This record gives sequence, structure tokens and C-alpha cells, in this order.
Amino acid sequence: MSSADTRLAQLIEPIQDGLSEMRDVIAANLVDGSPAVADMTEHIGRFRGKQLRGTLTLLVAKAHDVYTDEHPTVAAIVEMIHLATLVHDDVLDGAEVRRRVACVNERWDNQIAVLLGDYLYARAFGLSTTLSSRLASQVLADTTRKLCAGEIDQSTLRYHFEMEQAEYERIAAAKTGTLYAAAASLGAQYPNGDEAAAAEMASFGAEIGLGFQIIDDCLDVVGEEAIVGKSVGNDIEDGKVTLPILRTYQLADEATRAAIRQAYTEPEIQDRRGRLREVCDLGPGTEYALERANALVACAMGRLAPLPSTPAKAALEQVGEFVLERKW
Amino acid sequence: MSSADTRLAQLIEPIQDGLSEMRDVIAANLVDGSPAVADMTEHIGRFRGKQLRGTLTLLVAKAHDVYTDEHPTVAAIVEMIHLATLVHDDVLDGAEVRRRVACVNERWDNQIAVLLGDYLYARAFGLSTTLSSRLASQVLADTTRKLCAGEIDQSTLRYHFEMEQAEYERIAAAKTGTLYAAAASLGAQYPNGDEAAAAEMASFGAEIGLGFQIIDDCLDVVGEEAIVGKSVGNDIEDGKVTLPILRTYQLADEATRAAIRQAYTEPEIQDRRGRLREVCDLGPGTEYALERANALVACAMGRLAPLPSTPAKAALEQVGEFVLERKW
Repeated sequence: MSSADTRLAQLIEPIQDGLSEMRDVIAANLVDGSPAVADMTEHIGRFRGKQLRGTLTLLVAKAHDVYTDEHPTVAAIVEMIHLATLVHDDVLDGAEVRRRVACVNERWDNQIAVLLGDYLYARAFGLSTTLSSRLASQVLADTTRKLCAGEIDQSTLRYHFEMEQAEYERIAAAKTGTLYAAAASLGAQYPNGDEAAAAEMASFGAEIGLGFQIIDDCLDVVGEEAIVGKSVGNDIEDGKVTLPILRTYQLADEATRAAIRQAYTEPEIQDRRGRLREVCDLGPGTEYALERANALVACAMGRLAPLPSTPAKAALEQVGEFVLERKW
Repeated sequence: MSSADTRLAQLIEPIQDGLSEMRDVIAANLVDGSPAVADMTEHIGRFRGKQLRGTLTLLVAKAHDVYTDEHPTVAAIVEMIHLATLVHDDVLDGAEVRRRVACVNERWDNQIAVLLGDYLYARAFGLSTTLSSRLASQVLADTTRKLCAGEIDQSTLRYHFEMEQAEYERIAAAKTGTLYAAAASLGAQYPNGDEAAAAEMASFGAEIGLGFQIIDDCLDVVGEEAIVGKSVGNDIEDGKVTLPILRTYQLADEATRAAIRQAYTEPEIQDRRGRLREVCDLGPGTEYALERANALVACAMGRLAPLPSTPAKAALEQVGEFVLERKW
């Protein structure tokens, strides 16, 4: 077990029961009368990853002492929306492996993957309408909308090496930060809690989420599939200019810039990531991106300071460390 | 103007104001802060078709004398969900033209089309959470789930020429009937109306929807793109065995059956629909399918009998005629 694994095991201690309930709710909501659909939902149940978003919902609720019986369901809905985005992301990326399990688009095909993602969104929204408060439905519909808009913006900015860092961050915040923000803010606010606490936790989640995304982008460039547990190099294949690469490009001379653009676009290249790593030194750009992720997480941690000392608060502090040290 | 066009213009008479409000709500909910997203939603706004589902919601509410200020928004949400399914269907079908406008997957690419469909679902669900009653959110989340499950089942039954007609109908009912059923039942039941009336109108909508789908399947086989206004022959390209073809297959001898299967599957065929029309007589199968659509619509019309005579009831009777005579 890596130190990140150990840390993850520790930080979920205060919410073991809630996480177990959350997983039961997810499992119950992946059952379907159609054998074909049930076969697919059973398959994607095996994508189960870190479940960090649901974990945030539960820990934030505990840390604010507003935890209710419904929080595991709220956390389950957050995770189901995340699962839906993963299934569609894998179509978009042409990815083959997700958490060491074949992606839906590989095991079946893109057609099934699009429909199954839609199905998961519908189940998540449907589940949210069974809760006593409409807050989760409202926050999560709004979040999904922003998340999709962020991905659309990202898609239209493929191969844009002249982008500002702020533009990259705006998009990464929209596509990843928003669901972390919703997860954390719902933890504090559901069913009808403190708006100020919700706003503060939304910022906390947004910073953690953006930090997480930057680390993800670094792993896509410098990680190995066997360790990361999913296909790597997809961003480059897909023309996405992520922070480590954007910074590398900004630091490079004209000849290197041309070689970087070529690694992204020359039709006959088989292994774009391999080519990219040959034509430039990705070290300083990646280092810069990691520092930015560090700064974001530090900022998020500062927002925890006013909370009373509890095991849940201590666990939230560990989330920050986990995001930075994780290798998968 | 064809007789179908004239009929459509007449049947919307009793709900002109409501339809106009519905269109305003849709337009307002296709606005986005991202210029890229706004550009795309503006484009798909031009897909505006018959809006039969929203029309059903409004007419059914009027015919039951339970019309409220919120019904145009309910109708708008139904139409937005339909729009989301269209955008994703076009990805699944590899279609190029929708209502004489380029499909999103053609104008941009599949990646954008998947995201834009997700975006539309999220907007529709988000809009439903602003209504005074949660009924629309609940019904429409459940409907979307069934609709996706139906499409998944259809996808897994591609190239299954040995299917029973009942299996075809079960799938067509799930993928098309459910949204018509939801549109009609919400008209009668929203915000907290009569459950018996809602159930009756759900059956009415399901029958109209299944009839509509059967006609759609016939148009894909025997219609012309210039008249239908969207790509034709897609079902055959995609391996879907629809009722006119299923019936043709059932009526055919072994040699013709082999030729039909070959038209669907032989790799080098450029125009599968053209080949299919060469190797078999689609007339009797198509005629049989049209009769089945007629019977379904007649069944739906019977459910209107107990309603008091109003312009809305008369218009609902015209919906049945329209579904059967439409050529687009």
C-alpha cells in the first residue's frame, strides 16, 4: 500500500458507516429490469474509485455537525453524476481502460456508452427527487450544466497553445471544480443549512477540485498506465493543452514550440506522448503545475481553520494531502 | 402546404398562447454565458420540429380543464428532454441532417454532440426544479431513465431478425412511447391532479407515441430525405430491425431472408437501403406496420371519448390523424 492509500484509508474513518450506506444506495440504483442494462451497470459498478466527492459531502456534514440520515443519499447522487461523466468522458477521450477495468465504449461500443451515461444522469436526478429537500436536485442540475459547458469550452480550445493560464483554470474549474464544490457545499447546507458555510465550502471544494484536476493533468503527461490505473496520454491524443504542457510551451523557444505543436498534430505519429517527451523537457512545466496545485490545496485548507477540532475536520485536512500525493 | 401541415396548424389553435410561452421558455433556457455553448444552442434551436410532445401537454391540460400558468414550462421541459435525445440520437445514428439543418455531430463533432446533449438534459432537469410541484421532475427523470434503457435494449438487439413483434413494440414503446406518455399524463396531472386521469392519458400518450414511432420507422424505409427532412435509411445502416422490415422478413422465403440479412451486413455495400429495396418487396410489411399504427391511434382516440366536447378535445383527435398522415 502506498502512503496515499494509507492516508485514504485513514481519512474515511469518521464516515465509515455513511460511506457504506452511500455504496448501498448506489448499488440499489444501478439495478434495472432490463438484463442488458443491468449487465452494463454491474460492469461500471467496478469502476469504483476513490469516491472522493461523496467522501467530501459526508466529511463536511460531520465537520459542520449537520449530518442527517439523507447525507449518504446526497453523496450517492454526487458519485452517480460523477460516474455518468466518466462514462461519457471515456467516449470523448477514446479511452480503453478505467480503473483497470475496460471502459464501456471498449467493452460494448460508443453508442451504448452514450446511452448508459444518459441513463446514469437520469437515475441520479431521479434519486434526488426522492429526498425531502429539493436543494440537492437544484444544486446538482446546475452543477451538471456548468460541468458540461466547461467540457464544451475545453473541446473548442483544443490545440490552443496560446491560451492564458487563467483560461485553462477557468475551464478546469468548470469541468472538475464544480462537482467538488457542489459535493462540499451540499455537505454543509443540505437540507436547509447555513448559506455562508455553504459558500465557504463551495470555495473549499472548488480549490480541491482544481488542484485534483491539475494533478490529473500531470499524471496524464508523466504517469504510467500501470500505476495510474487508466489510459494515459489521452489529453495529448485529444489535443488538450493542460497546465504542465501549457507552461512547458510558454517556457520553450520557437523551435521547441513548433516541435510540441507537431507532436500534437502530425498525422502519422503513433505515440504522441512519447514524441512530446522526446522533443521537450516537461520537468519544469510539470513542477510549476504541481506548485500551483499545492497553492490551491493550501488555500482550501485555510478555509477549514474556523471549524472546531473534530475527527472529520482532521480527515478533511488529510484530503488535501491525499490529492497532492496520489499517483492514481 | 400538405394536408398534414394544415392539420398541424389547426390543431394548435386552442393553445397558441401556451405554445408561444413554451417557445419563449425554451429560448430563455438555451442562453448560456459561454459563447461556444450559446453558439451551439442557437444552432439546435433551429431543429424546432413539430413540438408534438409539448403540444400534447398543453392540449391535455386544456381538455381536462386543469391548465395552469406552469403548464407551458412543463411543456418546455418535455421538449428540451426531447431535444437532448435528438442530439444524442444523431451521434448514435451517425446522422447528417435533422430538419434540414446539419446535426451537431456534423457541424461540430461527436464529442461536442455528447456534451451538448448532456447540457440540455441538465438544463431541462434544472428548469423542472424551479416549478412549484416536484411532479414534473419525478416523472421526467423516470421517463428519461426508461427511454435510455429502451435505447440500450434496442442497441443490443441490432441485427436480430428473429425478434418477436412484441419485443420490437416493447422497445419502441420504451424509447418513444414513454416521453409521449409523460407529456400527456403531466398535462392532466400537473401540479397535483387526478391520478386516474393521469394513468388514462399516459396510455393515450404511449399509444400515440408508439404509433408515431412506427410511422417514423416506415419513413426511414420508404421516405425520401427531401420530404422527411432528415437522413433516411439510418435504421438499416445501424442494424435496427424495425416493424416494416421485421414483418417483411417474417413473410419472406429463406432465400429472400438471406438477401435481407446480407443487405444489412455485407461490408462493401454503400447504400444499404437501396440494396434492401432491390432484394425484397417492402410493400406488404410497410402496409402491415401502417395498419398497426392505425390501430394504436384508434385505441388512443377511444380514451378521449369520456372528455367533454371542447376545442382542445377536438384538437387531440386531430393529433391522431396528424400522426398517421404526416410525411415528415
